[in-house]
Amino acid sequence: MTKGDPSRQKSDSEGEGADPSFEVNSAVLQRLMGEDNSVIVEALKKSLGSLVGTSSGYLESLPVPVQNRIEFLRELDASRAELEDEFDEEMRKLEAAYTAKFAPLDRQLRSVVQGKEEVPANKETEIPADCPTGIPLFWLTALRSDPQLEERITEKDAEVLVYLTDVTSEPVVGEEDGDSFTLIFTFADNPFFTNKTLKKTYYMADDDDLMLEKISSDRVNWKAGKDVTVKVMKKKLRPGQKGTPATKVQSVDSFFNWFDPPQIPEDDENMDEEEMEQLQDAMEADFMLAEIINEKILPHPLKYFTGENLQDEDEDDEDEDEDDEDDEEDSEEDSEDDDEEDSEDEEDARPQARARGG
Amino acid sequence: MTKGDPSRQKSDSEGEGADPSFEVNSAVLQRLMGEDNSVIVEALKKSLGSLVGTSSGYLESLPVPVQNRIEFLRELDASRAELEDEFDEEMRKLEAAYTAKFAPLDRQLRSVVQGKEEVPANKETEIPADCPTGIPLFWLTALRSDPQLEERITEKDAEVLVYLTDVTSEPVVGEEDGDSFTLIFTFADNPFFTNKTLKKTYYMADDDDLMLEKISSDRVNWKAGKDVTVKVMKKKLRPGQKGTPATKVQSVDSFFNWFDPPQIPEDDENMDEEEMEQLQDAMEADFMLAEIINEKILPHPLKYFTGENLQDEDEDDEDEDEDDEDDEEDSEEDSEDDDEEDSEDEEDARPQARARGG
Repeated sequence: MTKGDPSRQKSDSEGEGADPSFEVNSAVLQRLMGEDNSVIVEALKKSLGSLVGTSSGYLESLPVPVQNRIEFLRELDASRAELEDEFDEEMRKLEAAYTAKFAPLDRQLRSVVQGKEEVPANKETEIPADCPTGIPLFWLTALRSDPQLEERITEKDAEVLVYLTDVTSEPVVGEEDGDSFTLIFTFADNPFFTNKTLKKTYYMADDDDLMLEKISSDRVNWKAGKDVTVKVMKKKLRPGQKGTPATKVQSVDSFFNWFDPPQIPEDDENMDEEEMEQLQDAMEADFMLAEIINEKILPHPLKYFTGENLQDEDEDDEDEDEDDEDDEEDSEEDSEDDDEEDSEDEEDARPQARARGG
Repeated sequence: MTKGDPSRQKSDSEGEGADPSFEVNSAVLQRLMGEDNSVIVEALKKSLGSLVGTSSGYLESLPVPVQNRIEFLRELDASRAELEDEFDEEMRKLEAAYTAKFAPLDRQLRSVVQGKEEVPANKETEIPADCPTGIPLFWLTALRSDPQLEERITEKDAEVLVYLTDVTSEPVVGEEDGDSFTLIFTFADNPFFTNKTLKKTYYMADDDDLMLEKISSDRVNWKAGKDVTVKVMKKKLRPGQKGTPATKVQSVDSFFNWFDPPQIPEDDENMDEEEMEQLQDAMEADFMLAEIINEKILPHPLKYFTGENLQDEDEDDEDEDEDDEDDEEDSEEDSEDDDEEDSEDEEDARPQARARGG
């Protein structure tokens, strides 16, 4: 929301000075209040033509009986605030209770996926020696089942994400952390990088508006020559030239670019409007993927692994199937790394404004 | 979210055809699974190189013990879904209970504001004859106390909003109405228009994403010559010309333009991307004002009437006061109807992405 509120200072510095619409206002007020309400009309003049705040003199100029009414509303307002606090507390309790109920189910799923726990049906039968443990490719498959993530995951990324063994989310616990959360990606030993986990934290402002304030991320420690976010181009040697050819590193599309999130610079006051907008767009785009993982995939990863999430979406959209037919033709083409696919999807969606929870 | 999901159809039509990265994938999988896992490696090949869905054949090709594990996860998933339904139900109950607790307080506030109810402190004293009933200009003052609304309320609008006697919000009750709500603005008899109330309804998609689907609004029935959303310009008569001068009607900035909200055309399939984006921006801008009224002002209108809302914001922003100083100079100028003021505020704000509640 807007901050600092320059207009408020204005009402301090302005007085009852020359207001061009003064006469009209006065007349309107006379009609509203009746001819004899000169006291209130005088007082109300101040409220028109400048923003009303505590210091405009309007409230103070109101007759005592009106002041008494305002005082009474203060009591009502305090009672409401008390009830709201009670409500928030009840909500927190309810959420905590259900978070605790979800936890063992979520833990058990991970345990089965990683092969740490065997399911009852398998305990009675002999498992062939060539049967893999757990559910292989569970997380790669689940992530790729979301169309927006699938667009970001290249073939090379998929080869890395084969080693993804777990994805979890943890709330950031702290006084001002509101709805901040950390996504934790756990990997098996792999030939690509040395990290055991990659963590990404989304810091949300601690108010009702659920605003993203900052994104922090572990950097990927790529092993030599294994960085899938870059392409190494060798310059051709000229005829007769000897030695090692020079190389040029060029960044390429990769899901792992997501672990290099947009940063708010220290001196953000000096950013111009366009830079600020670009940064905000970049943060929103980054956050969108985190939201998909945190709020859609993590509560029901099985649905994503099996592709049921796509069936659910189809059902939701049944009445709009006609809209989608034009798209099928395009879909035959290989769309990997194709950024335009993204905007086509947006074009297809009905206009919808994002709203916040309440 | 994206719909129709063209990429899913793709995985049906593609088979295990020529995949250029096939050899690499196979090698990676061999490393991961061990040399003897030929069954699973064969099965997994299908999962790389195309989006996995129910019909890709990947799930079906997994060994029986893995299938058993997936079956077990289905049970976990069903248990979680059951718990989630329980949680939603508990939340609904809690919300309903507190809505019922807030209602009498909100009603009493309105009753005092409109002068239908006298407060205890005034019952003992004699109220002077020239004292107005209720709290005059309560709603106009409250609305103008929000900086974003204040920017939209012109001097002419304020003269009309003097007659605003009540603002309420009602949920839209229906099967698919989710968080849809109606704002109701009640007016005293006035010289500007004939409406007793102006209602605006925001239809939200009934899912977790809180998406705005449609905005409907009562139109203002302006009395002749009283429409504050237009300026009537008289064309000058040429020297010697006789008769009534021709008039030209030009629309001007006005808060009441908000009662002419953006509409999604019937044939929105034919809109191009730019039109779609403009419509979406317009809907979001319209909705932003509704949110301020519905979620900020209506729960605590007294705080807005007295200007305490501005003090609260100042306190929140205390650590950023330095940022605001540069703005004070600008604020001396009269900013009414100045659209640029808006973008300055945005520039001043730290980049924040809007998130949805969860």
